[in-house]
This record gives sequence, C-alpha cells and structure tokens, in this order.
Amino acid sequence: MSGGSEAPRRRRASSRTSDRKAHDVRWAEIVAAATAIFAERGYDATSLQDIADRSGILKGSIYHYIRAKTDLLAHIVHETHEMGLREVRPIAHAPGRPSDKLERMIKAHVRFVCVNPERTAVFAHDRKRLGLEERRAALGNEHAYRDLFEDVIAAGCADGTFDPELSVRLSALHLLAAMNSLHRWWRPGGAITSEQVADHIVKTSLGGFRGTSHA
Amino acid sequence: MSGGSEAPRRRRASSRTSDRKAHDVRWAEIVAAATAIFAERGYDATSLQDIADRSGILKGSIYHYIRAKTDLLAHIVHETHEMGLREVRPIAHAPGRPSDKLERMIKAHVRFVCVNPERTAVFAHDRKRLGLEERRAALGNEHAYRDLFEDVIAAGCADGTFDPELSVRLSALHLLAAMNSLHRWWRPGGAITSEQVADHIVKTSLGGFRGTSHA
Repeated sequence: MSGGSEAPRRRRASSRTSDRKAHDVRWAEIVAAATAIFAERGYDATSLQDIADRSGILKGSIYHYIRAKTDLLAHIVHETHEMGLREVRPIAHAPGRPSDKLERMIKAHVRFVCVNPERTAVFAHDRKRLGLEERRAALGNEHAYRDLFEDVIAAGCADGTFDPELSVRLSALHLLAAMNSLHRWWRPGGAITSEQVADHIVKTSLGGFRGTSHA
Repeated sequence: MSGGSEAPRRRRASSRTSDRKAHDVRWAEIVAAATAIFAERGYDATSLQDIADRSGILKGSIYHYIRAKTDLLAHIVHETHEMGLREVRPIAHAPGRPSDKLERMIKAHVRFVCVNPERTAVFAHDRKRLGLEERRAALGNEHAYRDLFEDVIAAGCADGTFDPELSVRLSALHLLAAMNSLHRWWRPGGAITSEQVADHIVKTSLGGFRGTSHA
C-alpha cells in the first residue's frame, strides 16, 4: 500500500516540475519573440498576435503569462535594467582609481549593448511607453544606472584626474547616450569591432573629462 | 466691358491667392500637429484621426494634402534634414580652423535641437519607419549631415589639432548621438541652459578628440 501510494506522488511531483519547466521555457520564448519584434518594429506597431506568431504559441495561451502587452514591455525593461546593474555595479563599487573604473564600466556597457542590441533598443526607445507607475515598478530608481557613472566621474573630479569644473550630470548623460546609440548602427562582423568602439569611447571620454587643465 | 471683365479676373486671381494661402496655412497646421503627436506618442501609435483632432481639421480634408500618414512623416523628416543642413553646411564650408568650425557646428546643432525638440525626436526615432525608397526620397544622401562633421573632424586630424589616430567615423557618430539625445531630457527653463549643454559638449568633445598626445 505504501509502495502504491508512493509512486503516484512521485509522478505528480515530477510532472509538476516538468510543467514548471515547460512553463518557464515558453515564457522565455514569448519574451525573446517580443524583444525581437519590439526592437524591429517598435512597441506600438507590435500586436500580441505578432508575438504569438513569432513564438509559435497561441495568442490565447499568452494570456496565461500576462494580462496585456504592456506587461511584456515592463518585464523586458525591468530585466534589462537589472542585467545592466549586475554588470556595472560591482565595477563601480570595487576599490581602484576612478578613471580605471570608468574605463571598465564603459567597456562592460559597450559589450552589453553589442551582445544585447535588441534589448537595448527596446529599453532605449520604448520604456517611455510604460505608464509612470508601471515604470516605477519595473525600474525602481530609474536613475540607478546613471548614478553609478555619475559617482565614478565625480570621484575622478575629486581626485584631480578629471576637470574639477566638469558637469558630472552632463558627462554621464552624454556618455550613456553615445553608448546606447550603438544598437542603431553597430553590427557583429562589421568593419568596426565592439572592442574598437569601446576603446574609442574610453579614449575620447576620458580625454574629454580631463579637460583643458591637461591639454 | 473691359472694366467688367477685369474685375472678375482680379477677384479670381485674388481668390486663388487667398485659397493658396489658406491651403498653405492649413498644411502648416497639419504638419505642426503631426510633429507634436508623433514626438509625444510615436509615429505608430498616432492615427490620422489624432492629427485631425489636434489640428482641428476634418480627417477627410487631410486627404487633400496627403495620401497616407507616411507622407506626413516623410515631409517632417525631409524638412528637418534640410533645416539642419542649412544651419551647419555654411559653417562647415567656411574658411577657418577645423576646431573652431567644429565648435560652431556643435553650438548650431545643440541650438537647433533645443529649439526644435519635437522635430528632432521624430527625426531620430521615427525616420526608420519610412520604407527604404521613401527614406531615399526624403533624405537624398542620408549621411550628408554626418559627412559635414566627419569632414571637419578629419581636417582637424590632418592639421594636427586632433589625434591623427582618431576614428573620424566613430567620433562623428558619438557626437551626433550625444547631441540628438538632448530632446529626451533637456527642457527650456530647466536647471541647465542650452548654452551650458553646448559648452560642455564642445569642451569634452574637442578635448577628447585632441587625444593623449596633448594630455
């Protein structure tokens, strides 16, 4: 009897696990399809039907995962922000010279954009299509990522590496704008490698931040 | 008789002129409404009905001016590109030191973006929504504007002001990306004036382009 009751319980447990796995795999497929089409056509021009067609999942089944298309955008925006923070925060918080840390942060950000051009496109173009509340829920502190760059640039101004008169806010904004625009034109296998891009941005940004005192 | 035939002809001529004026004024109103809503919501999320509502013109009447929404986008993209070229080309082609010309071009571009944030937003985000043929018709040489910056940066590398090893293409791309991103956050009357933004970009870009040979 105990053997007889064990077997079905194990089967149930294993089938729950594989259900959960199948659920997770399908969700990942839906998110990947949504990211690709949002990047290609823009969020507004994409319907849930387009996402269903691309992911090979019935539109009705997508509603097991989300209530509306905006939930997919919120998920991609949240995930992308978190991925970026995970790359860059450890560098920003590590000990070391601010200019060395900024160099490593730039290289990490350029690599991230070049490896994840679709995510970056959706994050850059479409996150404003979320409502204010949704955006807060997805991002927490929307400026957390820029803050990491500002802190390191400010530390570089304080230790005399960068121009003490430099606007830290503008420097961070323009650096991020230049890096985030890469997804518009950079392609893997093209004439310019992502390392060349990163080296160029490191050299011109750090050179520019040093200012006229060193020119 | 001749007097009798003159008067109607004059009236016809004058009514034709005022018809043409009214036509031009309405077209300008439609373009202004379209630019504002495209910038606010994105091209794809905007319907011709939205543009009709905003401009106070019947949707049916808009079809006297265009065949489809895409014609409005093509017009805005064309006009913005031409306006930008008219600002910057005379500076690029004038005699003078490349670094001085680049400074003036940056200031002209920043001023243009800060005076025309909606146009810039539509140009930056939505021009890719035009088909390839439409884009060619609207822009001619799509890179004409960037070419002006590349030529002046290359001249600065040649005359020894800028690092001779500098990538001219990357320098122009990143400079334009930083300036074109202004429409996302810069607001008139805010904490940072457009002159401060321009000065910052001039200083950090020219400093960065000078490279390590001068650091």
